Amino acid sequence: MRAKIDKIDIQLIKLLSKNSRLTYKELAERLNTTRQRISRRMEKLEKMGVIKKYTVIPDFDRLGYVYVILGITLKPGVQIEPVIEKLKKEDDVKIIERAIGAHSIVIHLVVPKDMKGIERKINELSTKIDGIDKMDITFITDIVKFDIL
Amino acid sequence: MRAKIDKIDIQLIKLLSKNSRLTYKELAERLNTTRQRISRRMEKLEKMGVIKKYTVIPDFDRLGYVYVILGITLKPGVQIEPVIEKLKKEDDVKIIERAIGAHSIVIHLVVPKDMKGIERKINELSTKIDGIDKMDITFITDIVKFDIL
Repeated sequence: MRAKIDKIDIQLIKLLSKNSRLTYKELAERLNTTRQRISRRMEKLEKMGVIKKYTVIPDFDRLGYVYVILGITLKPGVQIEPVIEKLKKEDDVKIIERAIGAHSIVIHLVVPKDMKGIERKINELSTKIDGIDKMDITFITDIVKFDIL
Repeated sequence: MRAKIDKIDIQLIKLLSKNSRLTYKELAERLNTTRQRISRRMEKLEKMGVIKKYTVIPDFDRLGYVYVILGITLKPGVQIEPVIEKLKKEDDVKIIERAIGAHSIVIHLVVPKDMKGIERKINELSTKIDGIDKMDITFITDIVKFDIL
């Protein structure tokens, strides 16, 4: 059975989504509890996979990278799992999301600023993966807002 | 003039992208430097806006939320800035990205699991914002990989 997620868990994740570097002490103060309890909750949420990662949102452009989102639509009847397994092996594919709707898989590439290299990479991906019906390519030029929860 | 970003800055951001909760001490050990230097570098990168945010990637589904990506294409000639300003005021619009390519703006909604509410929200957004040519709606069902740098 799945462990329950309570209101305090959600408050905790919201605080961490605004600043994942808050210390146990700071989190405990804001949630009126103890550091030990915060640390235990976070460990639980990590183990459950409710917290998937603590990360950083950088300015890709300033770091010399291009951030590209590829929205992939598979042909009807194509199995999604083998496609995802293939994509997982690609180093430049940084984020993989299963989806329904306009796209069945959304992948995010973070690659050095080299437009010919990017073209090659995208062509390579689209030939490697069978069953692609359509691929929408979007180059992110700026992250204006990022406030996940 | 813009301050330079060096190799150590990039290594530091890469480490933080894998785990943004690493302490100054842990970061200093991995980069063979001192806590003071790490702290100073991070402060510099934050001030420069190269580090935009320390955050957490949660399992939205487990938290009771639906994660939707809307890829918006504006009609030719429509100014993007006023659209972005309007979107910034919407609480449910968690992430806003300027873009070129298939979409000119990518927005991410995180909303409680209530399909009628989501339909209403999306309709509301598309009537509020003038100049939308096309909107691709993608529901993210699972984040399979998240490894931003």
